[in-house]
Amino acid sequence: MAPHMAEWDQKEIFPVETMRKAAQLGFGGIYVQPDVGGSGLSRLDTSIIFEALSTGCVSTTAYISIHNMCAWMIDSYGNKEQREKFCPDLCSMEKFASYCLTEPGSGSDAASLLTSAQRKGDHYILNGSKAFISGGGDTDVYVVMCRTGGKGPKGISFGKKEKKVGWNSQPTRAVIFEDCAVPVANRLGEEGQGFNIAMKGLNGGRINIASCSLGAAHASVQLARDHLLVRKQFGETLSNNQFLQFKLAEMATKLVASRLLIREAAQALQEDRPDAVAICSMAKLFATDECFNICNQALQMHGGYGYLKDYAVQQFVRDIRVHQILEGEGFFLSLVI
Amino acid sequence: MAPHMAEWDQKEIFPVETMRKAAQLGFGGIYVQPDVGGSGLSRLDTSIIFEALSTGCVSTTAYISIHNMCAWMIDSYGNKEQREKFCPDLCSMEKFASYCLTEPGSGSDAASLLTSAQRKGDHYILNGSKAFISGGGDTDVYVVMCRTGGKGPKGISFGKKEKKVGWNSQPTRAVIFEDCAVPVANRLGEEGQGFNIAMKGLNGGRINIASCSLGAAHASVQLARDHLLVRKQFGETLSNNQFLQFKLAEMATKLVASRLLIREAAQALQEDRPDAVAICSMAKLFATDECFNICNQALQMHGGYGYLKDYAVQQFVRDIRVHQILEGEGFFLSLVI
Amino acid sequence: MAPHMAEWDQKEIFPVETMRKAAQLGFGGIYVQPDVGGSGLSRLDTSIIFEALSTGCVSTTAYISIHNMCAWMIDSYGNKEQREKFCPDLCSMEKFASYCLTEPGSGSDAASLLTSAQRKGDHYILNGSKAFISGGGDTDVYVVMCRTGGKGPKGISFGKKEKKVGWNSQPTRAVIFEDCAVPVANRLGEEGQGFNIAMKGLNGGRINIASCSLGAAHASVQLARDHLLVRKQFGETLSNNQFLQFKLAEMATKLVASRLLIREAAQALQEDRPDAVAICSMAKLFATDECFNICNQALQMHGGYGYLKDYAVQQFVRDIRVHQILEGEGFFLSLVI
Amino acid sequence: MAPHMAEWDQKEIFPVETMRKAAQLGFGGIYVQPDVGGSGLSRLDTSIIFEALSTGCVSTTAYISIHNMCAWMIDSYGNKEQREKFCPDLCSMEKFASYCLTEPGSGSDAASLLTSAQRKGDHYILNGSKAFISGGGDTDVYVVMCRTGGKGPKGISFGKKEKKVGWNSQPTRAVIFEDCAVPVANRLGEEGQGFNIAMKGLNGGRINIASCSLGAAHASVQLARDHLLVRKQFGETLSNNQFLQFKLAEMATKLVASRLLIREAAQALQEDRPDAVAICSMAKLFATDECFNICNQALQMHGGYGYLKDYAVQQFVRDIRVHQILEGEGFFLSLVI
Repeated sequence: MAPHMAEWDQKEIFPVETMRKAAQLGFGGIYVQPDVGGSGLSRLDTSIIFEALSTGCVSTTAYISIHNMCAWMIDSYGNKEQREKFCPDLCSMEKFASYCLTEPGSGSDAASLLTSAQRKGDHYILNGSKAFISGGGDTDVYVVMCRTGGKGPKGISFGKKEKKVGWNSQPTRAVIFEDCAVPVANRLGEEGQGFNIAMKGLNGGRINIASCSLGAAHASVQLARDHLLVRKQFGETLSNNQFLQFKLAEMATKLVASRLLIREAAQALQEDRPDAVAICSMAKLFATDECFNICNQALQMHGGYGYLKDYAVQQFVRDIRVHQILEGEGFFLSLVI
Repeated sequence: MAPHMAEWDQKEIFPVETMRKAAQLGFGGIYVQPDVGGSGLSRLDTSIIFEALSTGCVSTTAYISIHNMCAWMIDSYGNKEQREKFCPDLCSMEKFASYCLTEPGSGSDAASLLTSAQRKGDHYILNGSKAFISGGGDTDVYVVMCRTGGKGPKGISFGKKEKKVGWNSQPTRAVIFEDCAVPVANRLGEEGQGFNIAMKGLNGGRINIASCSLGAAHASVQLARDHLLVRKQFGETLSNNQFLQFKLAEMATKLVASRLLIREAAQALQEDRPDAVAICSMAKLFATDECFNICNQALQMHGGYGYLKDYAVQQFVRDIRVHQILEGEGFFLSLVI
Repeated sequence: MAPHMAEWDQKEIFPVETMRKAAQLGFGGIYVQPDVGGSGLSRLDTSIIFEALSTGCVSTTAYISIHNMCAWMIDSYGNKEQREKFCPDLCSMEKFASYCLTEPGSGSDAASLLTSAQRKGDHYILNGSKAFISGGGDTDVYVVMCRTGGKGPKGISFGKKEKKVGWNSQPTRAVIFEDCAVPVANRLGEEGQGFNIAMKGLNGGRINIASCSLGAAHASVQLARDHLLVRKQFGETLSNNQFLQFKLAEMATKLVASRLLIREAAQALQEDRPDAVAICSMAKLFATDECFNICNQALQMHGGYGYLKDYAVQQFVRDIRVHQILEGEGFFLSLVI
Repeated sequence: MAPHMAEWDQKEIFPVETMRKAAQLGFGGIYVQPDVGGSGLSRLDTSIIFEALSTGCVSTTAYISIHNMCAWMIDSYGNKEQREKFCPDLCSMEKFASYCLTEPGSGSDAASLLTSAQRKGDHYILNGSKAFISGGGDTDVYVVMCRTGGKGPKGISFGKKEKKVGWNSQPTRAVIFEDCAVPVANRLGEEGQGFNIAMKGLNGGRINIASCSLGAAHASVQLARDHLLVRKQFGETLSNNQFLQFKLAEMATKLVASRLLIREAAQALQEDRPDAVAICSMAKLFATDECFNICNQALQMHGGYGYLKDYAVQQFVRDIRVHQILEGEGFFLSLVI
């Protein structure tokens, strides 16, 4: 993806074909079970994969991680029919998924969402709006958090495509339901379980997004090092400047600390440890903040070049800025996923 | 400018007519003497004006500050003919100026610049390239730092317009001289004085650019406050959240500290105090760093909205990011000015 | 004071005679009116004096600032008899004052203090405990915040002298009132005015304590610079190390920013500006934090020597650490003053 | 050790008997081989032990870690006779060891040390001074880095006991050699190997000292949490304050990040990985800085109580402050060890 990340950013291209090639390598359902087309890998494997992919394009990788979470949700909480109906197409990325939690009025307060689902025979009739939906309008499968309630039918529509600072290779739109009929057969879990399922998804989402920050920071440290080795100032390469050497060492240190925390969190989640929620939150908080600082300092080390769109480092800064915002229990959910 | 800043950013418009209206208010030559069309104001006045203008558009104001510096340079170091020939049109912004110091290979090392000026009769023949030139290709008057040396003539050309993270309402291009003939009459000062003149310009440039950061931070604190007063979370407006209250108070504190330091520096420069260079550098360093942090935290307080181009705060962040880079003795010169 | 600060710290000496010499220079009642022995200077003068004195001994200067506040309170809110009875001896430091606000259970919550004053004829009978009282047990005049209420008499006693990290040249004790009779004639202002008077005292107290931090930072930057100029490493003096040069410049920048903010606050208070409370709080917050960081980095620059009590820098760090704690509305009052 | 840490600090007691009890648990030679009395544990075990011990007393644990390093050096680089002669008494702490590397004039520049060892028959005659020697004057075995050179004999003497900000349960003195005769049989390794041996010791020393910072931070987070749960302000326990909750979560996050980095470094050293030096340096840098910040913020959360010597948190701050100074290649060596 690396050769294309600048173009996808500037033209706001959602790189469907590239993602399908990634899916051929098993990245469409990394931690989905193999019987429905998944790769059956662990959370730790997933974190390593997302770190690596993000060095090529954060925005695309972040979407892939959301897609994976949707597929995993259906795999984990769906029944046999649902798993067989949806998962294979998602794992091959024949179809793409969006996660609909956030609402315009609710923000991070997942418990107070308003989108309603009223049962009418073998359908639910959905009403309500979802905001900041990655892939919204360009994807095929929508995993929607709503509350079972009352009322009658029109359909689904989408807001305008948002103009964003980064994350431009994935479209973001509002998703609006007006009397939108959904087969009851598509309901994940029982009525009333939705909130718990959403919360479960959160921990993995946090590690994934932190891993995307990690890839960006990893790549930025390398770009900065390469720049310092080449660029001359006052007759010497910048790499001979002691202040910059110390800064780079500090950045590398925080990169490693971020990585270790994310790996530990992935492992804790995989083993379903009692402290998994706490450590996933810590990894999210620490890694998204520190990795942004790393990328931002790498930009600084590029001098004026760092400000030009010809250089990748500025895109890493723009792309991962939003990862710090996708924070908090509900707010995270409401935004990222 | 405020209603247009987003459009100028996205369409990369150089707002010539708006700037001419600003010039009618006296902003084309704020600290240029009145006998050639300037407003004859002090450095302190200038700082206050640039802070205020920057709340409307940082990128445009930053260019205006560069234009002012060119006009001031001609006013201060030019002879009677030069002052009368160039200053009136610059003060009215009938004509626009660019400052050509930085070179691709020299970076912050002003003393090692390579662009040469060889005398041929009553002309100098210029050869060399200048990089990161604000307004380059769209302006009329070029104040060029070069060394008097040897060789023979072709002209001036411009590099491609750079794609930048921000500062999009001012074009940035390389300026290339190949045997470009310039009348000797246009030389500012005597041969050999150029370096000193450039250094003199630096102090004012630092205060100006720091003032532009200040305006952005000022506006961002207000945007954040307004957002917190309106946005609800968990049934309460965010302004009731103690953590955010503390953060906002901290941001306001650093805004005031930045402002006091810039004002003190402007005053020191105006009075030509012995510590003027030191205090201008301090103001530049402190204010561009702290104001970036203020804007970046204001973006964070907007949650997901802060990442959307519909909201101004993200543009303040992008626009002033480069002010931190325009740093150091020569590097500052080489980039900004 | 500079030659004695280490000894006063280690032996916990309250330097009564030295302070009386300071009083001969007018430092016992700097902003007390001249008709009762004060120096009649402004808040800005006061800030400059405390900054200068603190370079000699923070702990002693901090006490002097508390003493000054008590004298100012009696000068401002006392009647003619009270002013004439108390102020001259305080201004000459014939007598020393303590400020009794904080209580063990109330912390920063000034409004909820429990110490009671019950009127019995021409006396008030005081009951209650005050904590963290600077000078407590070694001073002569106690300015006490209490609430007028009921009950009957024993006297005043003091807790053990606290062992502290710094501020060792001023004793700190609890002050305990058990049926302690105080002449009604000694009451400052009317009943019910106490809270307002305490709040008024706060603003000046904040500037004073911030000025003491400033003096410590000022002295520490000089100590660090002197150390770097002398100490050799790898065959070069440390002052040639670019990383340390940058750090020192950064420290100097934050020192100047702190000073400007404190001076502005002193001026605002003197002129009774509407934003005086806000700017005094900002100055307190910013300067006590940044000055601690400056001193702490100066210690770091001393290497192992910075950790030894033979070197003054460690005492500056220990002494001003508490200034960051003396914070918030009531808590500040309750502790410092 | 916890009940005694305050007393040992204030009275500057070197707790010989307590350390001998620790030795009975195997802490005198944790990573020394069992055939000479060691516990034969790994670097990772060692790190965990030092973290735990440091929650009881940082200063004593830091000395124990230096003692362990000396024992390990003899175990690793000594011959059979040396191992059997020295190690058993060190492992049981019948005898205590000091590490003599730093010199007054050399600072962190290990390669330029001046202390000389001139061979005279079956003795070396040592001349030179060592500075900042932990345990110096109170210990039995001195591991000395010196250069083989010329001259003739008097003995060993010690400087005054240094007064320090912390680390008071271990004496620190200069160690002065004047024609001090040392049996050749006591030489570790061959002539010329000393520098390499010292460098090898460094990596373990870094992890050990970082582990001591970790224990202090661990204990301080718990003390802060306990304090917040009890202390009331404005009618509520401080633990209900959202700002303090966020701060505490942040502190816990950095504690965990520090721990993971130290564990990884210990593992890398144990397995002799190629990146062991880099990761040990990172762990030292990151953990000593972040753990100091954690302790310092925990002190802040205690309010005025944090400044009193009755509360342990201030001692953790003072004790680990020096760990940040023990830094850099040689400087670390020169100071700590």
